Amino acid sequence: MLGEMKFNNFTKKIASNSPVPGGGSVAAMGAAVAAALTEMVANLTIGKKKYVLEQEEMEKIAGLAEKYREKFSRDMDRDAEAFDSVMEAYKIPKDTEEEKRSNAIQSAAKKAAEVPLEVARDAFELMKWIEIVVEKGNSNAVTDGAVAAMMARTAVLSALYNVKINLCSITDQSFLRKTESEVKQLEEGCQIMERKILAKVKL
Amino acid sequence: MLGEMKFNNFTKKIASNSPVPGGGSVAAMGAAVAAALTEMVANLTIGKKKYVLEQEEMEKIAGLAEKYREKFSRDMDRDAEAFDSVMEAYKIPKDTEEEKRSNAIQSAAKKAAEVPLEVARDAFELMKWIEIVVEKGNSNAVTDGAVAAMMARTAVLSALYNVKINLCSITDQSFLRKTESEVKQLEEGCQIMERKILAKVKL
Repeated sequence: MLGEMKFNNFTKKIASNSPVPGGGSVAAMGAAVAAALTEMVANLTIGKKKYVLEQEEMEKIAGLAEKYREKFSRDMDRDAEAFDSVMEAYKIPKDTEEEKRSNAIQSAAKKAAEVPLEVARDAFELMKWIEIVVEKGNSNAVTDGAVAAMMARTAVLSALYNVKINLCSITDQSFLRKTESEVKQLEEGCQIMERKILAKVKL
Repeated sequence: MLGEMKFNNFTKKIASNSPVPGGGSVAAMGAAVAAALTEMVANLTIGKKKYVLEQEEMEKIAGLAEKYREKFSRDMDRDAEAFDSVMEAYKIPKDTEEEKRSNAIQSAAKKAAEVPLEVARDAFELMKWIEIVVEKGNSNAVTDGAVAAMMARTAVLSALYNVKINLCSITDQSFLRKTESEVKQLEEGCQIMERKILAKVKL
């Protein structure tokens, strides 16, 4: 499990001349860190007199962010596995029954698009909670909220690059149309959210 | 050393109700990951017939990116330590000789601004190498280069938030002017570089 590796060994593994883990796992990793920072700002708000009215909301956000953090950590592996499956499908000998090989590639590529799409969707959802901790959370930790917002934005966009590269080999037109439309929405949405959140950080 | 922690324990430590490690270490972490991806794209280019003309440049970049990766990993700790020193300085009892306390705070705050400023500067420098691997490196890994660019941009901006928050407590006007001007340059520079690099990624 990538999340159980020492950080320095994880980055060494990325740096190697193996395509996995790469940008897809890094997208999930960035999202996990954004979730951790969100949780931290919520935790730094809980129990503080000044923020007594925000108590309940911050407890809810700390719990949600923890779930996201754990989910994104698992996604680091899911992305690498989905990529490996695509490589495996391409390795099916070309003299295999044409349809069988092509179906295997199509199904692996769809999965390899769906995993990062889910990461992008979840990281975008997380931004709603980041906005709240930046707005109502402990103001001493406001820059941590800003970093969370930028990390989440980069996680969304990074995951979407990995969706798009997999779409290149997919032939199912209805899947392509549906996915491309969601990619576009998320691409624009995360940039707007980032700007909106950072505008609340006065420094 | 934060880089020697398991990734999941590192994010758990961020998430806790302690302000350190926080956004400053995360900035350095994002930069380390950007360096690792840069190294990977270079390594995936080295030894490939199609890229024989890029061999020498890619070997140089792989070596440079490795140094950056190791440097940024150490910066994760340096940032946390600089933050701790500021906290220590503020803990000096207020009945201590006024000048002594104030000097300790000023000197700690300067250090806590300088460390992330250096991270921002280095992550911005790294973007020049990312541009080259995206342009001339293995095109199969072009999305990894795109993710590196976005991660480096977010590392620069995240580090700069940590510079700015520390500037709030610094009184040395000449230090403030000099630093604010560099902050502005890096803020604009990294956004321009990100756009420039991503424009080269056709998907």
